[in-house]
Amino acid sequence: MNKIEVIRHSTAHVMALAVQELFKGVKFAIGPSIENGFYYDFALPRRSPKGKGGTFSPEDLPKIEKKMKELIKKDLKFVKKQISKAEAKKIFKNQPYKLELIKEKSASGEKITIYTLGDYVDLCKGPHVKSTKELGYDSFKLTSLAGAYWKGDEKNKMLQRVYGVAFNSKKELRVYLKQQEEAQKRDHRKLGKELDLFCFSDLVGPGLPLFTPKGVIIIDELKKHIEQICVKYGFEKVLTPHLAKISLYELSGHAKKFSEELFRVSSERKHKMVIRPVLCPHQTQIYASKPRSYRDLPIRYMESEKMYRAEKPGEISGLNRVYSITIEDGHVFCRIDQIKEEIKNLVKIVQDFYKPLGIWDKHWVSLSVRDYEHPEKYIGDKKDWDTCEKILKEISDETGLKAKKREGEAALYGPKLDFMFNDTSGKEIQIPTIQLDFATPKRFELSYIDKNGQSVPPVMIHRAILGSYERLMALLIEHFAGAFPVWLSPIQAQIIPVSEKFNKYGEKIKKQLLEKNIRAELNNDNETLGKKIRNGELQKIPYLLIVGEKEEKADSVAVRDRKKGDLGPIKTNKFIENINKEIEEKK
Amino acid sequence: MNKIEVIRHSTAHVMALAVQELFKGVKFAIGPSIENGFYYDFALPRRSPKGKGGTFSPEDLPKIEKKMKELIKKDLKFVKKQISKAEAKKIFKNQPYKLELIKEKSASGEKITIYTLGDYVDLCKGPHVKSTKELGYDSFKLTSLAGAYWKGDEKNKMLQRVYGVAFNSKKELRVYLKQQEEAQKRDHRKLGKELDLFCFSDLVGPGLPLFTPKGVIIIDELKKHIEQICVKYGFEKVLTPHLAKISLYELSGHAKKFSEELFRVSSERKHKMVIRPVLCPHQTQIYASKPRSYRDLPIRYMESEKMYRAEKPGEISGLNRVYSITIEDGHVFCRIDQIKEEIKNLVKIVQDFYKPLGIWDKHWVSLSVRDYEHPEKYIGDKKDWDTCEKILKEISDETGLKAKKREGEAALYGPKLDFMFNDTSGKEIQIPTIQLDFATPKRFELSYIDKNGQSVPPVMIHRAILGSYERLMALLIEHFAGAFPVWLSPIQAQIIPVSEKFNKYGEKIKKQLLEKNIRAELNNDNETLGKKIRNGELQKIPYLLIVGEKEEKADSVAVRDRKKGDLGPIKTNKFIENINKEIEEKK
Repeated sequence: MNKIEVIRHSTAHVMALAVQELFKGVKFAIGPSIENGFYYDFALPRRSPKGKGGTFSPEDLPKIEKKMKELIKKDLKFVKKQISKAEAKKIFKNQPYKLELIKEKSASGEKITIYTLGDYVDLCKGPHVKSTKELGYDSFKLTSLAGAYWKGDEKNKMLQRVYGVAFNSKKELRVYLKQQEEAQKRDHRKLGKELDLFCFSDLVGPGLPLFTPKGVIIIDELKKHIEQICVKYGFEKVLTPHLAKISLYELSGHAKKFSEELFRVSSERKHKMVIRPVLCPHQTQIYASKPRSYRDLPIRYMESEKMYRAEKPGEISGLNRVYSITIEDGHVFCRIDQIKEEIKNLVKIVQDFYKPLGIWDKHWVSLSVRDYEHPEKYIGDKKDWDTCEKILKEISDETGLKAKKREGEAALYGPKLDFMFNDTSGKEIQIPTIQLDFATPKRFELSYIDKNGQSVPPVMIHRAILGSYERLMALLIEHFAGAFPVWLSPIQAQIIPVSEKFNKYGEKIKKQLLEKNIRAELNNDNETLGKKIRNGELQKIPYLLIVGEKEEKADSVAVRDRKKGDLGPIKTNKFIENINKEIEEKK
Repeated sequence: MNKIEVIRHSTAHVMALAVQELFKGVKFAIGPSIENGFYYDFALPRRSPKGKGGTFSPEDLPKIEKKMKELIKKDLKFVKKQISKAEAKKIFKNQPYKLELIKEKSASGEKITIYTLGDYVDLCKGPHVKSTKELGYDSFKLTSLAGAYWKGDEKNKMLQRVYGVAFNSKKELRVYLKQQEEAQKRDHRKLGKELDLFCFSDLVGPGLPLFTPKGVIIIDELKKHIEQICVKYGFEKVLTPHLAKISLYELSGHAKKFSEELFRVSSERKHKMVIRPVLCPHQTQIYASKPRSYRDLPIRYMESEKMYRAEKPGEISGLNRVYSITIEDGHVFCRIDQIKEEIKNLVKIVQDFYKPLGIWDKHWVSLSVRDYEHPEKYIGDKKDWDTCEKILKEISDETGLKAKKREGEAALYGPKLDFMFNDTSGKEIQIPTIQLDFATPKRFELSYIDKNGQSVPPVMIHRAILGSYERLMALLIEHFAGAFPVWLSPIQAQIIPVSEKFNKYGEKIKKQLLEKNIRAELNNDNETLGKKIRNGELQKIPYLLIVGEKEEKADSVAVRDRKKGDLGPIKTNKFIENINKEIEEKK
């Protein structure tokens, strides 16, 4: 345990002491350190005779926090002691959760230690700080309440969890809280609603986002972007249905691997199918639809379509965890001697796609290989796996990818190169992936006629560049805090007449912009100029074009740039030229 | 029964007599006239002691046909007689199917008549021709065999059905057979495979077409075409998922109406959903996602996405009847005072879309209204229905649509204008539809704030222009016999070097064309020039560009036009200019 973890864990004990002083009869479960802080699970006595276990209310948090600050200032000592099982049972005779832990510890032969802090005794193996003076009374904060089952098992009693964060200094805490506040402002669920990009419907159900016109513009732009790049590298678009017989996935191995995630389909007419949890098996069937020769390879398919996974209902959240996943998926079928060039091209595609999105700078690459101790988790021959892992390693070396090897992160059928990004809260997420697969073509009996007239299986390279449109959109909303680059902005320019008198001129400008394929709208609402400008800013529109008498006379617009502020009047044609350049260059 | 129907029905009796003479112990079921011809269902005696009922073999057809010609030439008379039930039972004592029919007829009080033709007696109410001299011995043809259950019920015995066609003259027969032959050549299932536009997979399952790269090009072009037109009329794209809670369709009324066609979805994690059989309810939920004012209307959504229907497995066929239907669907939400302008614009959209497709000339419009005797088949108030039907009638009159009123053809929620086309075999198919719906917005509690600050429901106009991509593609493949107009052709120009020496020049031309967004490919197969040209023609590529020494020197290509044949050499730039003009004008 490093220093800051010790501080966080010790702060949890301080909280337990505070709660003991404030809430008579409280029972203690566990209180570990976690990322950025700590929590403690408590069972509160009933507040009314008939109620179930009591609950904290949000107003309790400042009270507990205040008490903790007092305790920390007292410079209380953490005192460790090793004791016998009998002593432990006596000390914790009124603490049922601790008694359960004592039983487990003694059963496994673990030594029993306690830590005393003031009047509070906890069953704990430590380590802790020596005294509370090592803890800052102003570098921690209690952040939230939640219900949590004892040992995470829903059959057990629901406990009261109090979360807190703790840092080395007041300044660090401030930075963290600021960051959190910022992340909340950028939250794609909040911004998605404010900017009208997508919505959910109680009638349709959770986990099934509906994309509104503005959201579809972003999806279409991303789709155009990935398609333009991939077509240059020889990809062709295919289109496959969402259903299939389950035997398709029994053959691919996904039926077993994704059994819980599979949506099963039936009808009164006795149909039996499944909704696909992946796209690859469908695409193999297009390859298999006619004979292929070595001269036809590589064959490269791409598709932006939905797949569905029966995620746990409790884990559904925003656009990041949904049932309906619009995946940008593609596959290369090639000869062994073509693998390297293909994968190198795929790496170039990843770069070409991500550079204009502004999230490329901090990426790193994972060489995701087998869990060597559990070969049963994968399909395919060991020899093929060895070859595939070797090839990916060589490509990483030759192209300077500097991929870090991570065991146990491979796909069902082969190793892969995963490109990792950070979201705004610093969390790591994997999006693009390039996977080498010798197993699937064999399972599906795919083949081509080689130079010697022999029928042999092709190699399959799975590649996702954009990943899922839902996840990428969530990432981009948060990354740009809704202020998308011009090429991605649903509305690229909004025309705001200074008064009703200039609505007609505004209409003319709008028409001019639309003709040049600029997504423009006119705000002729019956509002003050100030309010209209503020609304345009809240909508994070890149350019607000204010028009009045002066502008009409000079065939110009007064430009308010989202980033640079007021740019003053500019000839309409010149503005069109500038913005079109910006769009084309994806700046 | 008109004259030709009488001829067809009489020819069926001639066939029965021929079969009676050729196949001892045959039992007769029924033999009506049908479109273009007739059939008769027979139960053949077992050919081997252990077999089930015997079956005809294809070689039997010419034998039966020959016998029929002989009988027709004999000028046999059709003699009608009314008889009692007792007499009938005696005459048909060895004919179990006829006995069953006699029982039914006498139960319903119908008179029993028989027709005698030579040695053959049939239970039949006629009418028939007077004698076989009115039938042409060379104006009929037996076309096919099929199994058919007695009374169409699969619990009954399987009978042997023989189909034939019959016309007024030898010439009419010849025209019909020629047309059939042509239709078979144009069959989209056959051409779809030859031109590599789509495929099916046994592993994926029937009714689930997979679109190959060339098929997707056609789909994408059609999509671009419809979107370009609709955007001009203010439509915005939305994107909604394929699943929903069933309550969505209980509310819309589709759950009841489409119960058998609904695919139901479940998972090991206890999810319960359905796959949508229509798109409208999803789109209402985007409308409902925020408050709307009278100033926001009309709001127009469009979407090209899949829906799924659990069709009867036996009815699945080609692209015309599938489980996965890619529908081009859209909805207008507007005020009552906006209905007329909106629908008039929709009619313009239909025209703009279909004119470049070459199937517009022979369309007609149906004003599809309620089945007034069965109001229970619909949702919504009678008053609203009356209003909607009146508005559509007025629009038809005002715009010269000349819609023909058809009762019982309305949608679940309102009357509609349906645009009807003919396919190559002359069969009528309905594709575009404009439907007026006062009921759904009320059911979904959609609303907007009107000028007086009141919350009122909008009107919903359902519109499908392109219909389903699958059905339209089938229609277009057959209409053009695979020779699509240039803008729709998957490959617009193929470059064919006269010999290997000019592959490099061919490559250069290909690059030039691709840069100008012309879908070009190079045929550098190791084949003779003649074979390469023939292959290009079989693929129905609009332009084959032959290149050799002369062309390379002159920076030109020798153009073979699919329609006009050899056009001789033309400067490459000029060719590009010409073809791009043709593409842009959708000629």
